[in-house]
Amino acid sequence: MENISTGLQAKVLISALPYIQKYTGKVVVVKYGGNAMINPELKRAVMSDIVLLSLIGIRVVLVHGGGPEITETLKALGKESRFIGGLRYTDADTAEVVQMVLSGKTNKNLVSLIGQCGGKALGFCGIDGGMIKAKKLEKGADLGFVGEITDINPQPLANAIYNKYIPVIATVGTDDNGQVYNINADTAAAEIAAALGAENLIVLTDIRGLMRDVNDPDSMIPAVKLEEVPGLIEQGIISGGMIPKVEGLVKALNNGVKKAVMIDGRIEHSILIEMFSDEGIGTLFTK
Amino acid sequence: MENISTGLQAKVLISALPYIQKYTGKVVVVKYGGNAMINPELKRAVMSDIVLLSLIGIRVVLVHGGGPEITETLKALGKESRFIGGLRYTDADTAEVVQMVLSGKTNKNLVSLIGQCGGKALGFCGIDGGMIKAKKLEKGADLGFVGEITDINPQPLANAIYNKYIPVIATVGTDDNGQVYNINADTAAAEIAAALGAENLIVLTDIRGLMRDVNDPDSMIPAVKLEEVPGLIEQGIISGGMIPKVEGLVKALNNGVKKAVMIDGRIEHSILIEMFSDEGIGTLFTK
Amino acid sequence: MENISTGLQAKVLISALPYIQKYTGKVVVVKYGGNAMINPELKRAVMSDIVLLSLIGIRVVLVHGGGPEITETLKALGKESRFIGGLRYTDADTAEVVQMVLSGKTNKNLVSLIGQCGGKALGFCGIDGGMIKAKKLEKGADLGFVGEITDINPQPLANAIYNKYIPVIATVGTDDNGQVYNINADTAAAEIAAALGAENLIVLTDIRGLMRDVNDPDSMIPAVKLEEVPGLIEQGIISGGMIPKVEGLVKALNNGVKKAVMIDGRIEHSILIEMFSDEGIGTLFTK
Amino acid sequence: MENISTGLQAKVLISALPYIQKYTGKVVVVKYGGNAMINPELKRAVMSDIVLLSLIGIRVVLVHGGGPEITETLKALGKESRFIGGLRYTDADTAEVVQMVLSGKTNKNLVSLIGQCGGKALGFCGIDGGMIKAKKLEKGADLGFVGEITDINPQPLANAIYNKYIPVIATVGTDDNGQVYNINADTAAAEIAAALGAENLIVLTDIRGLMRDVNDPDSMIPAVKLEEVPGLIEQGIISGGMIPKVEGLVKALNNGVKKAVMIDGRIEHSILIEMFSDEGIGTLFTK
Amino acid sequence: MENISTGLQAKVLISALPYIQKYTGKVVVVKYGGNAMINPELKRAVMSDIVLLSLIGIRVVLVHGGGPEITETLKALGKESRFIGGLRYTDADTAEVVQMVLSGKTNKNLVSLIGQCGGKALGFCGIDGGMIKAKKLEKGADLGFVGEITDINPQPLANAIYNKYIPVIATVGTDDNGQVYNINADTAAAEIAAALGAENLIVLTDIRGLMRDVNDPDSMIPAVKLEEVPGLIEQGIISGGMIPKVEGLVKALNNGVKKAVMIDGRIEHSILIEMFSDEGIGTLFTK
Amino acid sequence: MENISTGLQAKVLISALPYIQKYTGKVVVVKYGGNAMINPELKRAVMSDIVLLSLIGIRVVLVHGGGPEITETLKALGKESRFIGGLRYTDADTAEVVQMVLSGKTNKNLVSLIGQCGGKALGFCGIDGGMIKAKKLEKGADLGFVGEITDINPQPLANAIYNKYIPVIATVGTDDNGQVYNINADTAAAEIAAALGAENLIVLTDIRGLMRDVNDPDSMIPAVKLEEVPGLIEQGIISGGMIPKVEGLVKALNNGVKKAVMIDGRIEHSILIEMFSDEGIGTLFTK
Repeated sequence: MENISTGLQAKVLISALPYIQKYTGKVVVVKYGGNAMINPELKRAVMSDIVLLSLIGIRVVLVHGGGPEITETLKALGKESRFIGGLRYTDADTAEVVQMVLSGKTNKNLVSLIGQCGGKALGFCGIDGGMIKAKKLEKGADLGFVGEITDINPQPLANAIYNKYIPVIATVGTDDNGQVYNINADTAAAEIAAALGAENLIVLTDIRGLMRDVNDPDSMIPAVKLEEVPGLIEQGIISGGMIPKVEGLVKALNNGVKKAVMIDGRIEHSILIEMFSDEGIGTLFTK
Repeated sequence: MENISTGLQAKVLISALPYIQKYTGKVVVVKYGGNAMINPELKRAVMSDIVLLSLIGIRVVLVHGGGPEITETLKALGKESRFIGGLRYTDADTAEVVQMVLSGKTNKNLVSLIGQCGGKALGFCGIDGGMIKAKKLEKGADLGFVGEITDINPQPLANAIYNKYIPVIATVGTDDNGQVYNINADTAAAEIAAALGAENLIVLTDIRGLMRDVNDPDSMIPAVKLEEVPGLIEQGIISGGMIPKVEGLVKALNNGVKKAVMIDGRIEHSILIEMFSDEGIGTLFTK
Repeated sequence: MENISTGLQAKVLISALPYIQKYTGKVVVVKYGGNAMINPELKRAVMSDIVLLSLIGIRVVLVHGGGPEITETLKALGKESRFIGGLRYTDADTAEVVQMVLSGKTNKNLVSLIGQCGGKALGFCGIDGGMIKAKKLEKGADLGFVGEITDINPQPLANAIYNKYIPVIATVGTDDNGQVYNINADTAAAEIAAALGAENLIVLTDIRGLMRDVNDPDSMIPAVKLEEVPGLIEQGIISGGMIPKVEGLVKALNNGVKKAVMIDGRIEHSILIEMFSDEGIGTLFTK
Repeated sequence: MENISTGLQAKVLISALPYIQKYTGKVVVVKYGGNAMINPELKRAVMSDIVLLSLIGIRVVLVHGGGPEITETLKALGKESRFIGGLRYTDADTAEVVQMVLSGKTNKNLVSLIGQCGGKALGFCGIDGGMIKAKKLEKGADLGFVGEITDINPQPLANAIYNKYIPVIATVGTDDNGQVYNINADTAAAEIAAALGAENLIVLTDIRGLMRDVNDPDSMIPAVKLEEVPGLIEQGIISGGMIPKVEGLVKALNNGVKKAVMIDGRIEHSILIEMFSDEGIGTLFTK
Repeated sequence: MENISTGLQAKVLISALPYIQKYTGKVVVVKYGGNAMINPELKRAVMSDIVLLSLIGIRVVLVHGGGPEITETLKALGKESRFIGGLRYTDADTAEVVQMVLSGKTNKNLVSLIGQCGGKALGFCGIDGGMIKAKKLEKGADLGFVGEITDINPQPLANAIYNKYIPVIATVGTDDNGQVYNINADTAAAEIAAALGAENLIVLTDIRGLMRDVNDPDSMIPAVKLEEVPGLIEQGIISGGMIPKVEGLVKALNNGVKKAVMIDGRIEHSILIEMFSDEGIGTLFTK
Repeated sequence: MENISTGLQAKVLISALPYIQKYTGKVVVVKYGGNAMINPELKRAVMSDIVLLSLIGIRVVLVHGGGPEITETLKALGKESRFIGGLRYTDADTAEVVQMVLSGKTNKNLVSLIGQCGGKALGFCGIDGGMIKAKKLEKGADLGFVGEITDINPQPLANAIYNKYIPVIATVGTDDNGQVYNINADTAAAEIAAALGAENLIVLTDIRGLMRDVNDPDSMIPAVKLEEVPGLIEQGIISGGMIPKVEGLVKALNNGVKKAVMIDGRIEHSILIEMFSDEGIGTLFTK
């Protein structure tokens, strides 16, 4: 921090006081994905944010996807990725690769990065402790072993939090026969936030927020009430890949999460900016 | 159990009483590898044994390797496995694949299998919570990122045990910069047993035990005292891949583990037979 | 277990897994009496069963009567036993002898036997900690100081269980003036099971179960629903000394006990057979 | 308290303050026997004292003998009591009767009496939880199954105290084969006081204290230092049945008990007088 | 206690047994004021009573006013005390002096006195931990910064009690801006008793109790039911400064306090006499 | 923070990470006095710093003096302050005023201010719970009731910290007879830091640090090793009122406190600047 005076630094810290007071001891679930997971500097900035929050007594839970690394490994294994309506078709072999890459590569690399930033993390996937129970997704096109969540067992996460570890979760699920399912990370983050009674669900995306007009950078909607969502879908403002994200937020809010926010993961330290300022950034969803 | 009368069954259960008394509340570390990890029936039998032990109050910790699956995935990725003196040469890419396969595939599949057998498991690798800290192996030929353990943090395992989960551990380690190392699972199991103050370290192998003459099935040595080990190495009775295994057992005993035993993983339920009979099976090492 | 192979033994143990899973951490109250309390081999077999259950994490509570030893001591003291309708007439002197024999002889001998089988037990009677509060039995013939239970204080039992002791209970009760009452052990077991929220109440008897025709060994009724009980009494299938036993089971089920079963105490290890097989033995009462 | 003014009563209570401060939270073991156990009024006074101490936060443990009731029951059973050097010869049958009477009659009657005085007690004998382990007494004449203590397991007592129950202990012991031994209650009280780290061991006797001349009521020795004991034995001032009592006190003091006192159980409320006045009564033994 | 025999002393202690049983572990709030706070001997007697109660397991909370010392300090500072309808008019300066004297002088002197009597106390005022939140009193004449309670935070008191300290509370309150208010101690004691779920609220006054005719010492009303209060006010029997006292008692009873009693603080040890006799002294209010 | 961009703000927060990691869960004792206690803005800045530290998991304990307010009150009471060698001569009346002002005015006002800044504080003085035991200062001139500390009871502070309150301590002490002593706050802070095993003792002063030449602002000594202190005193660099301050720091370091630092309380947020930068400010004393 060579070019910031220590006096200014102290003033900034003091300005954070009311926000720390607001969140201390609360659970905040961060859905991590998109560019913030690809760009190494953003990646490290997100991990620093999380370690900082954890240190000052906020209980952070990190839920991540990992599309690019899956695609890359599938390709290296000579298997083509196939998408239906933007969603990965997951045959039996692919499901195995998804499990392996998400929980063995992406997940453990994040755990390692948190450790390098001075935090303490434990990596889990939905198989651990039967944490994410799933079944084949029923609605929509047949996507193979893409699953929908039937049950969340939050106990291993609660234990980790209690022992001051940051849980990092790869979103593969399983049924009682051990069949593995590829689970949408937005949905999983929402369900986990609900199961843990989280204060806040923060979804990192690659856009500024919910845009009234995707071509107009000034058209971001700063706040949405749940009852406005159906109208926004009807008007096409919420559409495509945004629909499951918003559905996750809605579900979380309907299940006890206090606020849910979609923020721009491409901005460095966007999590801190969101949590430590009155205006926040991105689009805030509330009941 | 259709052809065993319930009366006989009760007698067998009662005969287990003194062994249960001996182990109840104690930590038993099982090093899992070899054929017992390849043959599906043996695999399920081992997992059943572990679930049973866990249910009757014995605190089982499972440490596993995963050579064949690593080799297979490397091959599928078009990368040849290279061995020096029976040990895998681990370049940077291989280290990443080892991490991914061991902690994302092998580990989670074992967790899943324990779940299917009615147990509750949590999968960890040495990266989680900084559990296995390592540095480049110094002695012997240059094996790339094959590591030796510098420190074990048993806290996440102790927490898991306390919450009645079976910890399953993939033996990759890491240093403070996040470099991943391939760690010998026999060594890791021994160090973990020592760090947890285990009562018993059970190593599943593909031979009957320590053989005086590998061609003579009747030449198994049932019990070895620590002070006999150097002589047995000198005589060539302990040699090759058996050396690190025995060194692990010796280290464990020297660090507070009560007994260490090498048993034949090819025999169904060999763990139960070892623990629930006076004679045990395989070769028992004691101080 | 000289003539059972260790492999078979392991298989038997594994076959017990689902039953252990079912009962682990649950409270099981065993009403102990009849032949199983007279024959020394049966006695030791019952104690072994209880120690085994306790060791594998099932919380066993033993409630016992002690008719023959009471009769014998009364006789040695030159006092005749007098029965009205199968129930002991209990004058003031007899009440004192009942207390002394049940809680000083029978009870402590069972505690000792459990200790010899490797278990840890604490002997209580209803006077300890005001555990069984009673008043003079009102209905039926005047039986002197035969009492009916007015209140159960389960705290000393809960404390014993928490500290991993097997509570063994002699069923004498007391009122606030210190008057001692002889309490029917079947009834006491049922009330204690209800007070502890037991999973299972097992009543050891000297018959195979509830018999449709006492002379036809094949006429045992394997399962009875509560609503069938009045009919069975009307038909005379439940009659005599069986009535208070069945009333106890009914009361237990109506107060939160999950299942109540009447089994043949003359069969060695009948408790294990009942608990560790799907079919069980004897007659199962459920709601 | 009709003839004491409430003002005086308050003054008396206040005068007890420094003594309560001294003992609050401390363990006090009372050896109960002699006349105080026969005379009904003394009996009730002792129990009231104990309940009062317990209520104001002093942790009382009551250890009792029961000679007269044993003799009486043996007689009723047509068995003569035989004494060698003042000690009961205990054949196998007698040992059984001792166990039955002490732990079934005397012990439970005391528990009941404490309950009637408003206290909460749990009755134990040395068989419960393997509390008093014993072997045949070696020194002196053959007394049959008179035992000496080999081990005390204080855990059940500590649990009872923790749960605010007054433990009442009948001093029969047992070996690993279940053989019951008649244990001297003075010795047992001393060993229990040592095992519990008691502050104070109070022995109720039928004399005023240690008398320099048994015929001279004014010759009581108010305080004895441990080093004076051998001289007092040599002079014959400590002799006969007094020897084991004093040996118990000496042993207790040598094992961490702070003070040990022999008081006159024939004086009503002698325990309170001893504990709640500076001068105390009887003979105080200190290191 | 030179002129009371130790035997009588023991009898008196035993006679306290049922009262100790009644209050053990319960919270008793004492409102301290009037003569009992001025006369040094009475003062020490009250502190002794409180230490005794605390030692025998009753959880005493002391709430005090401090009128005379405030008046005295104001005078020394050259500021006249001004009363409106018997209540102190509290301007900004006076509020500061009230805080300083009550919480810095009166309060700490009481804490010190309790310490000298062998007790352990912690002094608090309503500012500590935001314990008494207040706003300007609305009804009646403008009294300046005389406050009425808006909220009680009992946590610091509960913590002190849990750690076996006697909390002593000076009744100044505060609002969120840090403005200090002078709070009526009778009202504060009642609210604190309610917030702590006290068993008993004892108010020390300078009269014998509620008098039917203040000039007739025999006209004290020993017991009042809540429903009688309005009538007594109407008849003028409850009037003047007695009204807020009685209103406090009524409020306490309506919020879960079991009994509330107004006693004569001029009688030495009146608290003990009230609590340790059946008849008590003063006027008892119950629901 | 209107003129700092949220991005910059986030960067500053992240830069605090290593310092937070260093202090999290540690006890930091702040000696508060001088200008920082007079200037209202500095006062609020210090309280904000303390609340921030407390919120992010650092356990702050505030120890304060209060010279100016004491002088002012003494004057208002018509009593002159008398100083001998820079230390207040404390006669009996003055001692009472010191107690009243420090613990009733200064202390509670600080508690109130912390509350207004969003923190939770409890005010104590050395009388509470016998926290600071003292006797008349022996060395030097007769200063009346100026005391030196004989014992610290840290339990009430530890309880407050455990319950997440910031303890604020007025440094008056007491002996067993209730005599109050005026205690030097620097010394008290050092003793409290030692008794609590503090990580850090921070002393706020009215100079930049220890100055080699008080007239040369650039002559501050940034770091002093304990062994250099005697030399610095000899050279006159440590002199006058600085001597007790430095002696306090030395005593703290010799009793287990890790670092002790003297900083300039006239700089806003000097506590944060000291703790959250590598260079710190002021003079650091280490062993």
